[in-house]
Amino acid sequence: MKLNYSKRMDGIKASEIRELLKLTQQPEIISFAGGLPAPELFPVEEIKEMSMKVLEDMGTKALQYGPTEGYDPLREKIAKRMKKYGVETDMKNILITSGSQQGLDFTGKIFLDKGDVVLCESPSYLGALNAFKAYEPKFIEIPTDDDGMNMEVLEKVLKTTDNVKVLYLIPDFQNPSGRTWSVERRKKVIELANKYNLPIVEDNPYGELRFEGNMPPSIKSFDTEGRVIFLGTFSKTLCPGFRLGWTCADYEVLNKYILIKQGSDLQASTFSQMILDRFLTEYDLDEHIEKIKSVYSKRRDLMIKTMREEFPEDIEFTVPEGGLFTWVTLPESINARDLATKCIEKKVAFVPGGSFYPNGGNENTLRINYSNMDEERIVIGVKRLAESIKEMI
Amino acid sequence: MKLNYSKRMDGIKASEIRELLKLTQQPEIISFAGGLPAPELFPVEEIKEMSMKVLEDMGTKALQYGPTEGYDPLREKIAKRMKKYGVETDMKNILITSGSQQGLDFTGKIFLDKGDVVLCESPSYLGALNAFKAYEPKFIEIPTDDDGMNMEVLEKVLKTTDNVKVLYLIPDFQNPSGRTWSVERRKKVIELANKYNLPIVEDNPYGELRFEGNMPPSIKSFDTEGRVIFLGTFSKTLCPGFRLGWTCADYEVLNKYILIKQGSDLQASTFSQMILDRFLTEYDLDEHIEKIKSVYSKRRDLMIKTMREEFPEDIEFTVPEGGLFTWVTLPESINARDLATKCIEKKVAFVPGGSFYPNGGNENTLRINYSNMDEERIVIGVKRLAESIKEMI
Repeated sequence: MKLNYSKRMDGIKASEIRELLKLTQQPEIISFAGGLPAPELFPVEEIKEMSMKVLEDMGTKALQYGPTEGYDPLREKIAKRMKKYGVETDMKNILITSGSQQGLDFTGKIFLDKGDVVLCESPSYLGALNAFKAYEPKFIEIPTDDDGMNMEVLEKVLKTTDNVKVLYLIPDFQNPSGRTWSVERRKKVIELANKYNLPIVEDNPYGELRFEGNMPPSIKSFDTEGRVIFLGTFSKTLCPGFRLGWTCADYEVLNKYILIKQGSDLQASTFSQMILDRFLTEYDLDEHIEKIKSVYSKRRDLMIKTMREEFPEDIEFTVPEGGLFTWVTLPESINARDLATKCIEKKVAFVPGGSFYPNGGNENTLRINYSNMDEERIVIGVKRLAESIKEMI
Repeated sequence: MKLNYSKRMDGIKASEIRELLKLTQQPEIISFAGGLPAPELFPVEEIKEMSMKVLEDMGTKALQYGPTEGYDPLREKIAKRMKKYGVETDMKNILITSGSQQGLDFTGKIFLDKGDVVLCESPSYLGALNAFKAYEPKFIEIPTDDDGMNMEVLEKVLKTTDNVKVLYLIPDFQNPSGRTWSVERRKKVIELANKYNLPIVEDNPYGELRFEGNMPPSIKSFDTEGRVIFLGTFSKTLCPGFRLGWTCADYEVLNKYILIKQGSDLQASTFSQMILDRFLTEYDLDEHIEKIKSVYSKRRDLMIKTMREEFPEDIEFTVPEGGLFTWVTLPESINARDLATKCIEKKVAFVPGGSFYPNGGNENTLRINYSNMDEERIVIGVKRLAESIKEMI
């Protein structure tokens, strides 16, 4: 028996990362593969306390249905937190989603008809590409450098391409490259979006995890026309297990996201939202983020230092100022998928970079995560990775 | 500024129920509108205890990412619970979703191209229709009676219609009608689905809430070819605040749902899944369901009794053997949306039935929920509703 699936299903494959994650649940694997936060930093005791209080004070409400938009006190706190990104907004412009991933899926549903064009950074976040693929778009990749997307190329593409519907960007500690956009490029991209009447989806899961320097204003902070849809999440700053993120957009646009949320899964978990809200009331999330940053920045330092020491000379990698990832470019003769197979034998995992290019190619790249492994394992893992690379040169 | 949305957005409107729910959060409203379970029956203390234990014993795991398929011990327990529905299955055929609503959205994504046909009961669940609408299908409504869908009409439609892709059914205490399919029709619908190579989506949120008689075997229990996709949820038997449901299907089909879950929101909340799993380990959910049933059946009895006493003679309504709803048919001269406006002035809410017909019409119907209001409010509410009806005759 073979059922008739929709045409979109032809283009949908398992995320290489999620498949790798299964492998990496074996404790002996040193995993640089996922974008997993360090679990030892989760405030388990505090969350236990908050769970108690929520169930004691408002148990029946916490376990009941709630509004699609989300739990109002939490929406209000998120609206205030948007000031960190240079955005003045209020609760009516915030929708609570199941992680920021859900905001990506909704973006596809809201903007993309079959054959429409998504413009994205090259490389770009695999999970976003997969979410968009369900709506059968074409992807045009715009080249990037250390300051973000190439604005000349972007403008040329905008001038010559029909049916561009979404501009998808990760300006802070980009996934997978770890790079951050300059302020100048942020201003320029808004200018172009205004000119071509395009929505920008600004995906920002890592911005608050900055180890040094100042946080640049978000692209949304330069948006005077309500065309930037900002996606945030608590998965990296608190914990992913609640599946809580948010979409911030002008109400006219956000209302489409709310409608889609209704049909998709009615609402986010009332219980999780109330616990998170209580946590934000009784504890200082920023103080908690400081702890995370101090651990992650040490791990980044050690990873970069070990890569410098162990990698052959012609291997390039980015040195991110925050976030979770560094991005490695091998000589073109080395295929990172083959390297991954070799490394798994040595109990080391990473994500081959080819998956981050929607139109293929660039098989000599890889993404390395440094947030999830302790310092000892980082050193051992990088050494094994370097050995494997040397064996392939 | 006006952004260019996808064409599908033209067909998507706010669910009347969700909008009503906002109104009905005012405590003075007697609401027969939502499908809300009775919050006073939620096992708050037990869930508090389970939350504690989960965070004490496996806190870091509970707050971390987990596999897309769901938490294995919970999947295993659900697979075993499927025996209640006459289905022998195992964990690999279970995906944890964000309520059963998410299974409906995924169904649309997996099976529907623009213009494809969904066959559904007339009337059918509004939330499913809204979820499917995002994939731009046509709906053909098949008439129903007290034994379920009319099989002669179904066969005629199948014979004469191209591009039928999904058969969407709610065989147990149907939403909105409260009716249950006979075993004969269940067998017949499988026979037709086999003949026309169609998937059946069997949506069963209420089946375990049976007040009298025996639970009929599910449609899936008669499925020998792996074409029934069964959607279940804990929202009505435990609580909706966790947002936990499941999809049960043969692995080849389920794998499509898993792929779509990845792109949509990665996974269900690890934390909620572990609490639910622990609850199912340490407590007897069936015992808890007995409590719910004894309360709901009294409410149903009282609602039906009061409707019999207070309603004018020519008003018809169903007498469900379980679930949450009764379905009222007014004389054709009365528009239930006008009645709803009148009732809201008297602080009584219900859902006008027209919304449950994807192709419109039947504006003289309404859905009445009896699970969420205490007995006193049921009597007062039905009396006010009866008054309003009399004023309109």
